[in-house]
Amino acid sequence: MDFKQQLVQQSVEAKDIFLPHISADPVIFGFEHNELKVLLLKTNYRKIWLLPGGYVRKDEDLDEAVKRILKERSGITDIYLEEFGVFGKKNRSELYFEDFDDTLFQKQRFITVGYYALYSPSMFRLIPDEFSETCEWVYVSKLPEIEFGMDHYEIIQQALFTLRQKISTKPIGQNLLPEKFTLPELQKLYEAVLGKELNRGNFYRKIKNMGILKKLEEQRRGGAHKAPDLYSFDDEHYERAMKNGLNSW
Amino acid sequence: MDFKQQLVQQSVEAKDIFLPHISADPVIFGFEHNELKVLLLKTNYRKIWLLPGGYVRKDEDLDEAVKRILKERSGITDIYLEEFGVFGKKNRSELYFEDFDDTLFQKQRFITVGYYALYSPSMFRLIPDEFSETCEWVYVSKLPEIEFGMDHYEIIQQALFTLRQKISTKPIGQNLLPEKFTLPELQKLYEAVLGKELNRGNFYRKIKNMGILKKLEEQRRGGAHKAPDLYSFDDEHYERAMKNGLNSW
Repeated sequence: MDFKQQLVQQSVEAKDIFLPHISADPVIFGFEHNELKVLLLKTNYRKIWLLPGGYVRKDEDLDEAVKRILKERSGITDIYLEEFGVFGKKNRSELYFEDFDDTLFQKQRFITVGYYALYSPSMFRLIPDEFSETCEWVYVSKLPEIEFGMDHYEIIQQALFTLRQKISTKPIGQNLLPEKFTLPELQKLYEAVLGKELNRGNFYRKIKNMGILKKLEEQRRGGAHKAPDLYSFDDEHYERAMKNGLNSW
Repeated sequence: MDFKQQLVQQSVEAKDIFLPHISADPVIFGFEHNELKVLLLKTNYRKIWLLPGGYVRKDEDLDEAVKRILKERSGITDIYLEEFGVFGKKNRSELYFEDFDDTLFQKQRFITVGYYALYSPSMFRLIPDEFSETCEWVYVSKLPEIEFGMDHYEIIQQALFTLRQKISTKPIGQNLLPEKFTLPELQKLYEAVLGKELNRGNFYRKIKNMGILKKLEEQRRGGAHKAPDLYSFDDEHYERAMKNGLNSW
């Protein structure tokens, strides 16, 4: 099918099913091989990159909508998403559909709600939807080189800013590191999220002060160097820090 | 005018001017006499309490909308608002307008964007709008006793949760305390926000570790007790902490 026709057909169906003017965009970060990635679609129409976002059904809660959208567009399920920002500039999406007339559902003004999450890409099998040439994890370091539709690059930047702020108040690592890990491995995770190298001594001191780590009796065997100490998260303290924050009063 | 008629007339005008399905609700906290308050309206229709929220014009950005709404409903201008949550349950507002038929603009499903701020009430002169019997600062401690419309009590609770989390990562106090203040005065502010008493020694240690205070050479005169030390905020460090957070890596 012609990709413009495909969007016109989607528009006809969408008017019955979805609320106008509201959309949701999930920004799913992945940590793999010590690097941060983000989940993106490449559209059939225009061949540019977008977040796997979509519209809100008239008969569903917004929280349900964003999970359904993510599943339909990428195949990803069972994910905990956190809202981080609302993007409501009046002209934010008008250029993307400039080849269509104003009756196209997708071309109207949308205020979009951004949600983010951080997971290990190995947990998911990606399935692109019918509107997408591909659905894949793209290195955050490569984002400045690719062409985005609408304000989706700005939305990702805002999600990344939120993630970087959040790791000062909430622990990260569960579901991203193996059950037993070394401090250098944990440091790599923090460096990937923050996008910068950290001083080892400062990092060790701060991370130990959080009180969320258990030092194990065993060391990692088999390397050429001195066997490094292994750690795991103290589940109880980790959960408490997730709930109350790391620096609560 | 009959208050039901007033809402029907608003509905007719609203359909031309506003986007459907999207609203914004400002939660303005005030700190005064060592207590936390929140800005509320009491509606003409139904005589219950609501946040000073409203709708988004078709020709304005969402950020502009929430400031205009707050000004129109309460008289408050020149305020910095931060988005903290989106409330999108499908039935969140349907009961409030149950006396009207479904053509009423205000009765449709609205997804509302919550914004919050913390200011000194003495900075503002409140002016209720034509739909409100009164617009006033209500003590947070009194909220459980009053009747709210829709999910506005839940929205305030979420704003308060966000504010309490944020004071672990961002300084507060500018525009709330006099230029020169004592540590007990600053502690009262933190206690009002957190809704609990803090241990004095722990508080002094933590607050000094933030590096945002300047100890002045002068003491406060005139009390019956030993003259307490005076402090002011170190503007440069305060601004940096506002930008980068207090516990940045």
